[in-house]
Amino acid sequence: MQSPLFTDFYQLTMMSGYLEAGKDKQNSVFELFFRKIPQQGGYCLLSGLEPALEYLENLQFSAEEIEYLASLKLFNQAFLDQLKGFRFRGNVWAIPEGTVVMPHQPLMRIEASLPEAQLVESALLNIVNFNTLIATKAARVVQAAGADSQVLEFGMRRAQGPDGAMSASRAAFIGGCAATSNSLAGMRYGIPVRGTQAHSWIMSFASELESFRAYAHRYPDSALLLVDTYDTLGSGVPNAIQVARELREKGHKLAGIRLDSGDLAQLSISARQMFDEAGFPEVRIVASNDLDEFLVESLRAQGARIDTWGIGTQLVTSKQEPALGGVYKLVSIEESGGWRPCMKISSNPGKATSPGVKQVYRGLSQDGFVGDVIAMASEAAPEGNCSIHDPLFVTPHRLEATHFEPLLEKVMEGGKRTRPAPALTEIRQRGLDQLSKLPVGSLRLHHPASYPSGLSDELYELRRKLLLSARG
Amino acid sequence: MQSPLFTDFYQLTMMSGYLEAGKDKQNSVFELFFRKIPQQGGYCLLSGLEPALEYLENLQFSAEEIEYLASLKLFNQAFLDQLKGFRFRGNVWAIPEGTVVMPHQPLMRIEASLPEAQLVESALLNIVNFNTLIATKAARVVQAAGADSQVLEFGMRRAQGPDGAMSASRAAFIGGCAATSNSLAGMRYGIPVRGTQAHSWIMSFASELESFRAYAHRYPDSALLLVDTYDTLGSGVPNAIQVARELREKGHKLAGIRLDSGDLAQLSISARQMFDEAGFPEVRIVASNDLDEFLVESLRAQGARIDTWGIGTQLVTSKQEPALGGVYKLVSIEESGGWRPCMKISSNPGKATSPGVKQVYRGLSQDGFVGDVIAMASEAAPEGNCSIHDPLFVTPHRLEATHFEPLLEKVMEGGKRTRPAPALTEIRQRGLDQLSKLPVGSLRLHHPASYPSGLSDELYELRRKLLLSARG
Repeated sequence: MQSPLFTDFYQLTMMSGYLEAGKDKQNSVFELFFRKIPQQGGYCLLSGLEPALEYLENLQFSAEEIEYLASLKLFNQAFLDQLKGFRFRGNVWAIPEGTVVMPHQPLMRIEASLPEAQLVESALLNIVNFNTLIATKAARVVQAAGADSQVLEFGMRRAQGPDGAMSASRAAFIGGCAATSNSLAGMRYGIPVRGTQAHSWIMSFASELESFRAYAHRYPDSALLLVDTYDTLGSGVPNAIQVARELREKGHKLAGIRLDSGDLAQLSISARQMFDEAGFPEVRIVASNDLDEFLVESLRAQGARIDTWGIGTQLVTSKQEPALGGVYKLVSIEESGGWRPCMKISSNPGKATSPGVKQVYRGLSQDGFVGDVIAMASEAAPEGNCSIHDPLFVTPHRLEATHFEPLLEKVMEGGKRTRPAPALTEIRQRGLDQLSKLPVGSLRLHHPASYPSGLSDELYELRRKLLLSARG
Repeated sequence: MQSPLFTDFYQLTMMSGYLEAGKDKQNSVFELFFRKIPQQGGYCLLSGLEPALEYLENLQFSAEEIEYLASLKLFNQAFLDQLKGFRFRGNVWAIPEGTVVMPHQPLMRIEASLPEAQLVESALLNIVNFNTLIATKAARVVQAAGADSQVLEFGMRRAQGPDGAMSASRAAFIGGCAATSNSLAGMRYGIPVRGTQAHSWIMSFASELESFRAYAHRYPDSALLLVDTYDTLGSGVPNAIQVARELREKGHKLAGIRLDSGDLAQLSISARQMFDEAGFPEVRIVASNDLDEFLVESLRAQGARIDTWGIGTQLVTSKQEPALGGVYKLVSIEESGGWRPCMKISSNPGKATSPGVKQVYRGLSQDGFVGDVIAMASEAAPEGNCSIHDPLFVTPHRLEATHFEPLLEKVMEGGKRTRPAPALTEIRQRGLDQLSKLPVGSLRLHHPASYPSGLSDELYELRRKLLLSARG
């Protein structure tokens, strides 16, 4: 959706207002963050940065777009003329894609003139919110599946629109999925593609056995047979075993079967036993049917013998909680006397923001991540141990780290990337590495341990001072 | 996402399999339907047909796409060569967009060769599932808001990806929304665009009053002022009244204010009173803040004085239930001896499909819709009263109608549309008309009356016969 009109209309009316008020050159800093981890989880896995940068880099108004705005009879010519030369020329700092992130941490920082920073808000939120939502969901499913089984993303038919499917395939791969069923995502992003067969294939033949044979003939070394069209254990699995024998005689191997209905725990255990007894321990069992991380965890606890999980709707829509509530807030503005830190005061204390330009320092020890400090960007990294503050609580928390690393990097300078986009496999690997360093309690699906993340002494004090002066 | 690769990978492996098995010219009929209305609602409002037809009409493989498939080393040259000339050349029957539809009714019927019908499954499901989900959600919100207030769709920042936002804007308009905040949807679909202002606008000025004045100066007849940045009733509304006075002196009118936090019932009542007492009864009150149809209904019941509802996340993601589970099933296949009706048998009775090619006849009386008959396409419309059957229950239901109208129309013949796409406003009007004819009990949000829809005697008998013979 590479169009500057892919934005909330008020961004355009405000841009025109900034011009009229002589504020169109005024510099500002906005930060993008979220307040709550979806599904009461223990972490989010950041995704969407590279698509966001691509959007920023290519932003310009076409003649048709300016004509459309003119047709609304709301904007004056001076503004429409200015749009012709519009580009995003700001600086961007961001946490790399595939990083574990926590509430209230600035994920992206936009340093730009007010109109530029304002125009891009809606698209940046759209991209980062959805990609992070799905990468996080995928990571949860992959963690639940464990290292000895694979997760495939099969969701496009129930995704929220075509791009809902495309973005979801990319983000699910970053979250650790092994492959997608979405062929276009395969081509565009280089994600491995996988698929089995549909009930319609089986039903289009006179018999199930005939349909299995035809498929195995075409794919003698990669056929995954769908065994639940008529009777999973009564006909599907026996017919698949028959085809496995025929393939073996010709020097080939049946790749596997797919279970798509019924009691997946019981059926997979029985099917595994039938294949093992028939001498086919290598035939893999794929399971699908509206699965999510909780069902995967439960099926494993029940001893299900499932090698590969096909996860669709629940993954690509993050069905239990289908939106990440990321926001984009003005944190500092340049005035004649210098920069003024801004914060949104709110009658709801949880909605008040933290003022000023920020950096996140992640504390590390030999065991991995120990906690994060949200600090003023002007602060140096803490040396060794330090305190962090929950903005709403009085008592600070003590972090004991061997050292701290800054998470935000400058990724765009004057509207140009500072480095090429990393490969998707690299981003995916980063995600897997990051999760392996998170305290194991924070990976739990149920009542995860809260990972320590809070404000530095300095930021906490500034926030308190501004809040009190606003209310005084 | 106009690409034939926007499909589940197994469609491509099956297509290649059909070619190998000599079944690539075999004719088939597939039907698209859903089993369950989201959120235990009383109806769905069908949407997505026109985007689906556009997709079908333009389907072809590019050289790059065929090259990508070749690179997977899974397909043979005969298949890849065949793809070069691929077009969708089938017939399509469908219920028009903006029609009220019920579970198990065929929404689209695809008559095409097996490979053609198979390839398009994933994209058709993706499009119809999501568009129908959102049009239905929008209709629920619009019904809750009542005829005397307006609903605006404000969701793009939390939508599921860029197209999640674009499709949602279109479907929300079909569902009865008055406008969108998504400027690109405004340009592309001709939907009215609307917007107010953001907190960042207010915060970028030295004072709230100054920020209101600057905005009103630029938009003297259309300014909607956001009044909750500091203190809604203490500063926001008084400052807005001040600006309303200044505008009036210059012969202009303040359009309205927006409430975005706090107790919307209480705040809107107080703000209304303050504006009325100051002599500004025409200033409109817009409310937003994670609203859905239940909150709208509740706020109205509490006497909230809200003229316009800005609905975002909850609408564009259908947050309570973010996926419609539409499916696409083979219902008939041509064999040497003629057509064979197909049905999916399932150990779960609710998942078994109904066999054969179908039509839906809607029964009407003077009061509106009385119930629907899902019949064999070969059956004539019932004349007057008739019986319908729930596939799982024994006792039929009696429909008393003055006459019946078929819902499915032939919309594509040999891959070409039979008529041009209707205007979006026409589709939207159809939706509003349809909802006005639905029994009022089916419009309820809580425990809606179940609208009668079931199988004709003939279809019920065929289904029973096939089920028994499959199990015998």
